[in-house]
Amino acid sequence: MSRKIPVTLTNMCMVQDGDRVLVQNRIDPDWPGITFPGGHVESGESFAASVIREVFEETGLTIENPRLCGVKEWENKDGSRYMVLLYKTDQFSGELQSSDEGEVFWVHFDELPTLKLGLDFQKHLELFLNDDLSEAFYENTSEGWKLHLL
Amino acid sequence: MSRKIPVTLTNMCMVQDGDRVLVQNRIDPDWPGITFPGGHVESGESFAASVIREVFEETGLTIENPRLCGVKEWENKDGSRYMVLLYKTDQFSGELQSSDEGEVFWVHFDELPTLKLGLDFQKHLELFLNDDLSEAFYENTSEGWKLHLL
Repeated sequence: MSRKIPVTLTNMCMVQDGDRVLVQNRIDPDWPGITFPGGHVESGESFAASVIREVFEETGLTIENPRLCGVKEWENKDGSRYMVLLYKTDQFSGELQSSDEGEVFWVHFDELPTLKLGLDFQKHLELFLNDDLSEAFYENTSEGWKLHLL
Repeated sequence: MSRKIPVTLTNMCMVQDGDRVLVQNRIDPDWPGITFPGGHVESGESFAASVIREVFEETGLTIENPRLCGVKEWENKDGSRYMVLLYKTDQFSGELQSSDEGEVFWVHFDELPTLKLGLDFQKHLELFLNDDLSEAFYENTSEGWKLHLL
């Protein structure tokens, strides 16, 4: 019996340099604002390869050894899911270069809350920082989406 | 543009009690042998809820705070993927009880290599133990599957 469901597979990466992190001012109309860079997993790629490619395309930096630190996900009404594999690394090389997806720049971690963050991004940050959390699950309730940090 | 692909979503959990881990002698003809308990993610469940339920069904134990420590995955020729979300926890309660999926029992960690492990399970173990690794990706090459630990 097949147990496959339709899934959108994406990634996002926190690139850290001491007390600074690399952010993107995302233009995406579905989720605008300051977040970390990332995008879709392509056919044939490992998840690690996909996040290395996306960070390069969107920031010009070549990251190494991205580590999975959690997953953000929800189930749509039709049973399909959307997944964002969350990674972090402090190993990178190259020259910073923005893309059409949005401007990228370094910010001090303490400054992040003062920026125009993407929806719920402040909550998602917990997954990158707290080793005891590894999932942001949006439950589809009669009163709308309810975010659980697990 | 929809970027959904068909994915089989499953989980597996290392339940640890000091220097002992809980293993299952899996009957599954596709992947028999000693592994950790786990199974499919069901509709409506968060991934954390799915692994808590599977461990309960297969071991009788109620785990708490499972933490995502990696993912095992491959892409089939038709572009679909199979994913195993890998978790670990040392928090549990209840009475050990095997299921139809296979006998469950505690083993000392050092004994594991001497048991009839599932295919590649010894390699997958690295993902549970080494914080610098978070993916076991099976690449589909002209010479067959090639396992990458990433």
